[in-house]
Amino acid sequence: MGNADYVYPSSVMNVESSPRVAIPPPQPFFKSLGYSLKETFFPDDPLRQFKNKPASRKFVLGLQYFFPIFEWAPRYTLQFLKSDIISGITIASLAIPQGISYAKLANLPPILGLYSSFIPPLIYAMMGSSRDLAVGTVAVGSLLMGSMLANVVNPNEDPKLYLHLAFTATFFAGVIQASLGFFRLGFIVDFLSHATIVGFMGGAATVVSLQQLKSILGLEHFTHGADLVSVMRSVFSQTHKWRWESAVLGCVFIFFLLITRYFSKRQPKFFWVSAMAPLTSVILGSLLVYLTHAEKHGVQVIGQLKKGLNPPTITDLVFVSPYLTTAIKTGAVTGIIALAEGIAVGRSFAMFKNYHIDGNKEMIAIGSMNIVGSFTSCYLTTGPFSRSAVNYNAGCKTAASNIVMAIAVMLTLLFLTPLFHYTPLVVLSAIIVSAMLGLIDYEAAIHLWKIDKFDFLVCLSAYVGVVFGSVQLGLVIAVAISVLRVLLFVARPRTYVLGNIPNSVVYRNVEQYPNAKHVPGILILEIDAPIYFANASYLRERITRWIDDEEDRVKAAGEASLQYVIMDMSAVGNIDTSGISMLEEIKKVTERRELQLVLVNPGSEVMKKISKSKFVEGIGQKWIYLTVEEAVIACKNPTKDESEAWNSV
Amino acid sequence: MGNADYVYPSSVMNVESSPRVAIPPPQPFFKSLGYSLKETFFPDDPLRQFKNKPASRKFVLGLQYFFPIFEWAPRYTLQFLKSDIISGITIASLAIPQGISYAKLANLPPILGLYSSFIPPLIYAMMGSSRDLAVGTVAVGSLLMGSMLANVVNPNEDPKLYLHLAFTATFFAGVIQASLGFFRLGFIVDFLSHATIVGFMGGAATVVSLQQLKSILGLEHFTHGADLVSVMRSVFSQTHKWRWESAVLGCVFIFFLLITRYFSKRQPKFFWVSAMAPLTSVILGSLLVYLTHAEKHGVQVIGQLKKGLNPPTITDLVFVSPYLTTAIKTGAVTGIIALAEGIAVGRSFAMFKNYHIDGNKEMIAIGSMNIVGSFTSCYLTTGPFSRSAVNYNAGCKTAASNIVMAIAVMLTLLFLTPLFHYTPLVVLSAIIVSAMLGLIDYEAAIHLWKIDKFDFLVCLSAYVGVVFGSVQLGLVIAVAISVLRVLLFVARPRTYVLGNIPNSVVYRNVEQYPNAKHVPGILILEIDAPIYFANASYLRERITRWIDDEEDRVKAAGEASLQYVIMDMSAVGNIDTSGISMLEEIKKVTERRELQLVLVNPGSEVMKKISKSKFVEGIGQKWIYLTVEEAVIACKNPTKDESEAWNSV
Repeated sequence: MGNADYVYPSSVMNVESSPRVAIPPPQPFFKSLGYSLKETFFPDDPLRQFKNKPASRKFVLGLQYFFPIFEWAPRYTLQFLKSDIISGITIASLAIPQGISYAKLANLPPILGLYSSFIPPLIYAMMGSSRDLAVGTVAVGSLLMGSMLANVVNPNEDPKLYLHLAFTATFFAGVIQASLGFFRLGFIVDFLSHATIVGFMGGAATVVSLQQLKSILGLEHFTHGADLVSVMRSVFSQTHKWRWESAVLGCVFIFFLLITRYFSKRQPKFFWVSAMAPLTSVILGSLLVYLTHAEKHGVQVIGQLKKGLNPPTITDLVFVSPYLTTAIKTGAVTGIIALAEGIAVGRSFAMFKNYHIDGNKEMIAIGSMNIVGSFTSCYLTTGPFSRSAVNYNAGCKTAASNIVMAIAVMLTLLFLTPLFHYTPLVVLSAIIVSAMLGLIDYEAAIHLWKIDKFDFLVCLSAYVGVVFGSVQLGLVIAVAISVLRVLLFVARPRTYVLGNIPNSVVYRNVEQYPNAKHVPGILILEIDAPIYFANASYLRERITRWIDDEEDRVKAAGEASLQYVIMDMSAVGNIDTSGISMLEEIKKVTERRELQLVLVNPGSEVMKKISKSKFVEGIGQKWIYLTVEEAVIACKNPTKDESEAWNSV
Repeated sequence: MGNADYVYPSSVMNVESSPRVAIPPPQPFFKSLGYSLKETFFPDDPLRQFKNKPASRKFVLGLQYFFPIFEWAPRYTLQFLKSDIISGITIASLAIPQGISYAKLANLPPILGLYSSFIPPLIYAMMGSSRDLAVGTVAVGSLLMGSMLANVVNPNEDPKLYLHLAFTATFFAGVIQASLGFFRLGFIVDFLSHATIVGFMGGAATVVSLQQLKSILGLEHFTHGADLVSVMRSVFSQTHKWRWESAVLGCVFIFFLLITRYFSKRQPKFFWVSAMAPLTSVILGSLLVYLTHAEKHGVQVIGQLKKGLNPPTITDLVFVSPYLTTAIKTGAVTGIIALAEGIAVGRSFAMFKNYHIDGNKEMIAIGSMNIVGSFTSCYLTTGPFSRSAVNYNAGCKTAASNIVMAIAVMLTLLFLTPLFHYTPLVVLSAIIVSAMLGLIDYEAAIHLWKIDKFDFLVCLSAYVGVVFGSVQLGLVIAVAISVLRVLLFVARPRTYVLGNIPNSVVYRNVEQYPNAKHVPGILILEIDAPIYFANASYLRERITRWIDDEEDRVKAAGEASLQYVIMDMSAVGNIDTSGISMLEEIKKVTERRELQLVLVNPGSEVMKKISKSKFVEGIGQKWIYLTVEEAVIACKNPTKDESEAWNSV
């Protein structure tokens, strides 16, 4: 490209005739309100595809929107079926032992884990838009529900009430999830940042693994606390009760599960090795106990599991105080956590396979499956990462793999439950531990430290909060720190001094561009955040200090004295009335010091508000420029410009 | 200014040799942490003046920092003294009746109002940096303290405990105020925006005025509730008990006070007319009662006031639960509210008189006066607006006017308290009502509506919350909405399409500049906020929709197909790891659609992080430009540029 290709029009250099900062055309209040609401709640414009369509087509599209199965089922092929059957059976073999294990984390009967892998996957298969999500219960959600409900009802003393409370909490989790999606409030889930989730999951996995020491050491009495201190105290205060048989069995199975996982990770073709390992462990463990009668030598077993499908529980929901508030609170916390996991997992796999997932639609699907689940003896389900990854690796094509899994679980419930009688608890604990170790993502934590120290702090505090406090505490701390960071960004915005980049008309931050040159007699400042009540005082102080510093520097260096303060408002997205007062105060401060304040490139919101509040008239329209360059030129040639301005009045 | 004055250097037009976006020089972790902390907590760099000074000078400066009296006392003149005596006596004449009235709002003995106008002003005179602030109790703070403490201890049933609790709450208010200043956490006060305060004050004034109906109508039993509904119910359920004598007296005095205020407002020279009016009312009212024996006909009077100065109360502070938490909570809420008023008032008058006030220093001064106050029978004090305005109008020169006021109050306490025996309560109510009506700043509310609808919403909800709920509720709602606004700004940033402004190299938002021209085949987007976890999902959806919309538009208009998406990052102040993932996803989305993603002008923080996370390598350094213009030129001449880029590798 040669210089001849692009010639700067002469008018650019001519400030008088150059374009000025525009005040955006005024809009009726309700129109601008409507636009703001649309931008806030409908970033993806979900009604887009409904535009200009006949009513019948709209109905079909609407049906497909809420039930994506109507979209993909007509295009379903035999080839798809084959893949989905393979992946469905694979995830079922993982779902059965995991379901039984995780139910124990929630202090619930093991059979609930199987129930929860039957109905919810069927609902999700109809309503979900992810092709890879495998539905089931999750360790962290189970633990969280268990610890929140056990605060109110003791699961050993009143197991029936506890069970009903768990269904009620699941019901509210579903209602909250579905409403978040329906009212497009998905951004609440966004407040659980990636860093929070890494720390939180790692902490929960640590806690859950430690709790498994109970079964692995064959202890009968154990703390209900989930923090490191009480678990360790419980373990080491009973050293005389440790059962070596149980411990050996546990270590062997953990080793077996970890080895198979390591192998499958290295050889993705053999994904089924690690997927089948838990079921294999259960079968081997059960056989071992059955043959050696180890259950009589201190190895605890599951015992009897009821045969038959999910009994209805819609009439068991508890809507009376004081249990109602507990159920709502537990439902809200576990529901949002489960949602965060489900959506993040769905989104990651959609990204791999290049298809799009609508977060709000997913929330409705996950919420519906929990509502229906709570009516049919299921507790909280979502799309766990481990199971979905197996589903993906097994080559699933559509959500039909969930249907296959549900059928496999159904058959188990109908015919195979007696086989689990002799399954030793220690094997279930081994399954949990090996799954949990995969959730401690220390590499992600290192990555956070390298890139963003603040994110690392969030992650670390979530981890420490969960491990030394409680699961809820870790979550609250991490979310609080994340929100604090956002508030701090606004409350303490960065301000920069700009300099001219040599051989250009561009002015940039002198910290980032050390070669940017200072313009004598002019201080150019950039503000990097909206000017709101939360930072108005701060900015007034900080800008005053920039001016003080500059005047001192100029005096010390013996340069021409400061005459102009240019404020580049490009990055100021919005302003409120406190912000406008701040600008007025800065104007007074500069006037008192005989400096001229110049504004550059206020955005549409800012320009609208400062012109309504008469600040524009106060500073003079002629001291507001479109670019820093124009402002600097005007400052360098003040007399002429001023006289022209006077003439034009 | 002619064109010849400024010639664009040819290199600007030559993309290859033009300056590129710089990655800021790496800094050691602790250095950058230190810098961030300094920017966050010391915007005004208070240690600036101590630099390069000998130790003795540093000591004097330090003393003057904490006790500004050492700064102004040596320069004190006889002329100053004259002015300060006049203004001191004027504010004393206002402080005495107001003090007695406001103590009643806090359910405290009237004499406490006088005590609180004696010691705290002396402390402030030594430590305060405002020349115009007149110290005393405030209506809203009194009401708030009264309603918060009465929730725990009934002031009629256990007046002694209630009194001690009030001193304890004042002590904690002082401690919290002083620590906020000492630890430079003044930004907590900033979260009470101007809009919040307008609504909150208006609501509190409404509630306080309505409560005065008790004395004005001469009712004996009255609700303890402070909301509109319970007050109105209380008033209208006792219509048969209304005393017309009292009501007539009340209306006459309110009318008198309002008339004098109106007069003084129109004729600022006669400020003393309205300043003296409350004391005149008290004297007239007392005389009237004394002469007519109206106290025997249903006009309630103050009764006996103890003679003598403040008794010490340091041993009365209650540090036992459950009262401790109440005291801390009440102290925190009332302390912060009082601080907000005191600092705002101090700052406004400093702005008028062109001197500077250090907010953190003021907090230490106000906190200290409350701590000392709590030891000497005083309750919460700050710098009320009405009294400070009178002080200012009376021509005060320094904080010495507070000393004069304190001496006047001292003399009253020593000799004049018996004179208040016959003062009718209805006069005190009239004084409160007329002061409160001035606080309902409906003009400010209209101003907010005109300039910023959201600020108006905040103001309105504070008002409605206070009037229909409680003072605390109104405050919580208003602060929550204000914080929500800040979060919403970050969670839902505005995105704009940019166009080229004719005859310039400048690209601006097409909404604000309707004449800005679209560049064929290129979509230029601007993001107006930091990219954080809270908005990463939103931005991904919204940017995808911009691309969809643009592709649809291009197709419909039959223009050249979209090839480039330029993202102007100038206004993106920061990014976190979730934001970087979002950028990576956007890159994948654009690649899938065969579009090239181009970044423009990432700031130092953003550039640092995206280069650490390898995103820069992913997108290619050559697709990051310093200005939109350069990016557009590069997009328009892709082949040549690309081949050159390849050559340079």
